[in-house]
Amino acid sequence: MHYREVETASEYVARLETGADWRAEIESLADEVEADAAWFTALGAVQDAELWFYDQDECEYYPLAFDEPLEVASCVGNVSLLEGDRFAHTHVVLSDDEGVAYAGHLNEATVWAGEVHMRVFEEPLEREYDETTELDLWL
Amino acid sequence: MHYREVETASEYVARLETGADWRAEIESLADEVEADAAWFTALGAVQDAELWFYDQDECEYYPLAFDEPLEVASCVGNVSLLEGDRFAHTHVVLSDDEGVAYAGHLNEATVWAGEVHMRVFEEPLEREYDETTELDLWL
Amino acid sequence: MHYREVETASEYVARLETGADWRAEIESLADEVEADAAWFTALGAVQDAELWFYDQDECEYYPLAFDEPLEVASCVGNVSLLEGDRFAHTHVVLSDDEGVAYAGHLNEATVWAGEVHMRVFEEPLEREYDETTELDLWL
Repeated sequence: MHYREVETASEYVARLETGADWRAEIESLADEVEADAAWFTALGAVQDAELWFYDQDECEYYPLAFDEPLEVASCVGNVSLLEGDRFAHTHVVLSDDEGVAYAGHLNEATVWAGEVHMRVFEEPLEREYDETTELDLWL
Repeated sequence: MHYREVETASEYVARLETGADWRAEIESLADEVEADAAWFTALGAVQDAELWFYDQDECEYYPLAFDEPLEVASCVGNVSLLEGDRFAHTHVVLSDDEGVAYAGHLNEATVWAGEVHMRVFEEPLEREYDETTELDLWL
Repeated sequence: MHYREVETASEYVARLETGADWRAEIESLADEVEADAAWFTALGAVQDAELWFYDQDECEYYPLAFDEPLEVASCVGNVSLLEGDRFAHTHVVLSDDEGVAYAGHLNEATVWAGEVHMRVFEEPLEREYDETTELDLWL
């Protein structure tokens, strides 16, 4: 296992803008507060969503599109540097009007309402290519 | 995007009382430690639950009742002031005896067992009516 | 309600090892940093999983096995002492290649990739048998 002690430099709460992209909004927050490493949790609702499923055999992401209003029942993720840019690795659990849950890696989603808590770390985190999983991982 | 830097004034872990209401218990904790703004995550199990789904066209919540024991696989939320009272905005992911997940905005649920981590912020958060979504949002 | 004020002694980010057990990895981190009480959230993917559902009438856990690659859309849990050992109480939300979500108490799962944030508390937490639920609870 790879781990690193981190120190929280600052903490933020944010409200995501209705109509904006969920993940882009989180990356905007990271840009605005110059967070090169951060951890966040969030909740809210979206107007649509595209999840990505990672095929562990093919080592490729496949998109799953949802074109309906969904609650964001859970959102956990982190910010790190990926090829020099701040990238918000974002996993969510969504639910439809019958409470049925869909979940996975969030690529994009149109915000209806979103509330985020982000803690920014002193130490940067940088993603690098991992040969085993063909994913960009940190540490 | 609207955001605010916050400082953690204090942190708590809590065990929710079996038979009590999940959200009311979190609000009791907030009352007891005088938290006007807080962020929490939690896990556990409930004996039943009522989720609310927000209809983005009608701008109204609809209830979804579950009358069976469910795991609380995830709970993310925050405490803020709503018309002068402490309100715990609470999203959950629940699961039944086959592992099937249901999720959304939690109105009420009878605690079987619950474990909460809450961080209380120095700065208060207050909800106000938002015309676009017809929700009470902060910031 | 039972609660305790805690202080964060240290914080960590960790990457779980591909092929290792998800929960054992978190317990290894706790052992390595000597965390007798901690709170964590995490995300990632696993190659398989065994969830446990707690039957509230029988007061017994039943296993639910999943033999396929799954995203870890959410993971919330805590570390405390159970009969002298560090135990990571771990709830997860998983999703399959169609985005369908499964959730509950995680017993074991083979890591594909995992990213964890753990905060370690100064004060230890110890689990003891609770007669009402027949679970080992703290506080």
